[in-house]
Amino acid sequence: MYDLLKGLRVVDVSAFVAGPTCGLYLAQMGAEVIRVDTLGGGPDFTRWPLTEGGDSLYWEGLNKAKKSVVVDLARPEGRELVQRLATAPGEDGGLFVTNFPVEGFLSYEKLSGLRPDLISVRVMGWADGSQGMDYTINSALGLPLMTGPADDLRPVNHVLAAWDLITGAYCAFGLLAALIARMRGEGGREIRVPLSDVGAATMANLGFAAETLMTGQPRPRMGNDLYGAFGRDFTTRDGQRLMLLCVTPRQWAKALDALGIAGEVAAVEAELGVSFTADEGLRFTHRARLYPLFERAFAAKDAAALTPALDAGGVTWGAYQTMVEALADRRLYRDNPLFQNIRHPSGREYIAPGAMGTVTPDRRGPVRPAPKLGQHTDEVLAEVLGLSSGEIARLHDKGVVAGADRR
Amino acid sequence: MYDLLKGLRVVDVSAFVAGPTCGLYLAQMGAEVIRVDTLGGGPDFTRWPLTEGGDSLYWEGLNKAKKSVVVDLARPEGRELVQRLATAPGEDGGLFVTNFPVEGFLSYEKLSGLRPDLISVRVMGWADGSQGMDYTINSALGLPLMTGPADDLRPVNHVLAAWDLITGAYCAFGLLAALIARMRGEGGREIRVPLSDVGAATMANLGFAAETLMTGQPRPRMGNDLYGAFGRDFTTRDGQRLMLLCVTPRQWAKALDALGIAGEVAAVEAELGVSFTADEGLRFTHRARLYPLFERAFAAKDAAALTPALDAGGVTWGAYQTMVEALADRRLYRDNPLFQNIRHPSGREYIAPGAMGTVTPDRRGPVRPAPKLGQHTDEVLAEVLGLSSGEIARLHDKGVVAGADRR
Repeated sequence: MYDLLKGLRVVDVSAFVAGPTCGLYLAQMGAEVIRVDTLGGGPDFTRWPLTEGGDSLYWEGLNKAKKSVVVDLARPEGRELVQRLATAPGEDGGLFVTNFPVEGFLSYEKLSGLRPDLISVRVMGWADGSQGMDYTINSALGLPLMTGPADDLRPVNHVLAAWDLITGAYCAFGLLAALIARMRGEGGREIRVPLSDVGAATMANLGFAAETLMTGQPRPRMGNDLYGAFGRDFTTRDGQRLMLLCVTPRQWAKALDALGIAGEVAAVEAELGVSFTADEGLRFTHRARLYPLFERAFAAKDAAALTPALDAGGVTWGAYQTMVEALADRRLYRDNPLFQNIRHPSGREYIAPGAMGTVTPDRRGPVRPAPKLGQHTDEVLAEVLGLSSGEIARLHDKGVVAGADRR
Repeated sequence: MYDLLKGLRVVDVSAFVAGPTCGLYLAQMGAEVIRVDTLGGGPDFTRWPLTEGGDSLYWEGLNKAKKSVVVDLARPEGRELVQRLATAPGEDGGLFVTNFPVEGFLSYEKLSGLRPDLISVRVMGWADGSQGMDYTINSALGLPLMTGPADDLRPVNHVLAAWDLITGAYCAFGLLAALIARMRGEGGREIRVPLSDVGAATMANLGFAAETLMTGQPRPRMGNDLYGAFGRDFTTRDGQRLMLLCVTPRQWAKALDALGIAGEVAAVEAELGVSFTADEGLRFTHRARLYPLFERAFAAKDAAALTPALDAGGVTWGAYQTMVEALADRRLYRDNPLFQNIRHPSGREYIAPGAMGTVTPDRRGPVRPAPKLGQHTDEVLAEVLGLSSGEIARLHDKGVVAGADRR
């Protein structure tokens, strides 16, 4: 937890990954992020992985440091409460994140009618409003056909919902960009961020689209070969796979030195009349000539002997670790100051991270867990909407809202 | 182009994907983003894909809407110029993005000595400063061992540099968070964003880490099966592969209806005594029982007959398209208002996107191309540092700076 955004109030009516990560990043930088769910929880409330008790490790990971309000979103009275929360007054309020449909009770039109300077960020699937989630957008973009071993033509989906995650971080950026404009005297705005646009734009930003426009072909599938420079996984004598990357001249020189193959590579350069140091693309073009030299060098030693030499030589490499090994990796998890051992709403204690960025000269505050579903219903209704305890009790009695005890 | 961040001045001394996308997102929301490179361009200046003329489609995709300044970063006089640019006065300046080492002439310590309220965002590989790039961090996190067909145990790297892209968007968010704090009277800050921390935190945020802490095992490799709910690729009669997703009860019901297998699925539910509608996890647990029903329904029709029914039924599905097909897809590229056909520094004309988010009620301005390398050297030295034309000429003569004509 950091305090950079302290005092800002963001209402988050979203589910799954993109919207909730946007709220998570804002909350971990100090904003008060109020996640609103319908009775019993949103559609992601029981998303796997689950504990034995049925609590979602996914939900409690993505909603850390937020407050939770539960309102019956199917009833007019509940919908009106959420509209009032999103548009409650205050120069640090009027910030809203959702993946609800463009039309409907959480439309920008309706909400900006209640608060004209509202800043609304809307995660969407397809830009035309039709259903799309990370994996279906990804398949449309062509990546699964470029992924995986070249000797197997089945499409390979990614496991990491990359489009959701890029969208979530971009939404947090977009919300703050609109807030800065508002702080400088401008009005409210809605920023719509469809996964389909994030995908199409990113594939263009990286040159994939332009490349295919130029060549008329998709980039071919090439396993773990790094496109356009030198990189691949290689196997040590004891069967460990290591990923090696040589993009810059410096990375290339260091790898050759550490592996002791500079002379052999120079012989190939002399034979072909090229300089692999000067041109990363030639390393790629001639990779079939180069691979055997690297394969032999990796196969000559066990990983335990080879990797200290790679580290000492400043080589850019990575082991293929399992998640079990990753958790034991002191740099990733074991000694990483981002992580603290905390108790989560499932009742389990385990390590969880605060903000992904480390802020100097600030001190990291405690990592805050996700709320219990409905934990802050009464507090938020009282503090943000100014409802009396009698009014709140009436809403409970009518089943319009629920607290953590009513789950 | 939008104007939300108009007037902000960001100096971007970074290369490859994470830092440059941070600058790109800021520039496309209206900030003046000045990318500084050394003589001849940074280490990414000839990154593939290239045009026949050797210009990088990657570079010109990632640096759209920026200004380009070229300074000899190896010489003290050049380094001092960059320090002065990053720390030049003005309440809308003092914003800096880099992937240069923590120590050295672009250290936060040195720069904040020149401008205490500087906001610096630093992309890193590993948090301890050691070399790491997207693919080597990814291998360490365990994802390649969870990716790809279950019958092939080779690790599968992702093709999309997801960690770089999440980091880039998060850096843009972090920079604006620190700027908001500064606008509210706080001082300068550095935010360090190592890919290793973005990776470790994200795998924890999504529940991967907690799952393995609970089970003691990494999540098994399962091809294109969606973890924890129902989803996979299925093949139509004419051999098209389609990705189907049923996470919510609504998505499940719609898929069964559109495929005409609600009765068969109900029979399986009756036999097993479960409700697949009520529990997405049961759809996953029993997927081997369910897959044949879906396989038969997909195999019964050609894609041309099946996909309109899926669309009409509101099913969440996606075709596995090649990049050629994606470019012909009206929703992704062909009729997407994010894209305009513009001339790029390579001299080629092709479609390129503006900001990934669509801002209401603003109008999208023209998509601005990347600069020629060094195109704005003189302009920036004059406007930001107030150098006279004589001083600028002297810097050119000494080879400390270069313009676009000197490339």
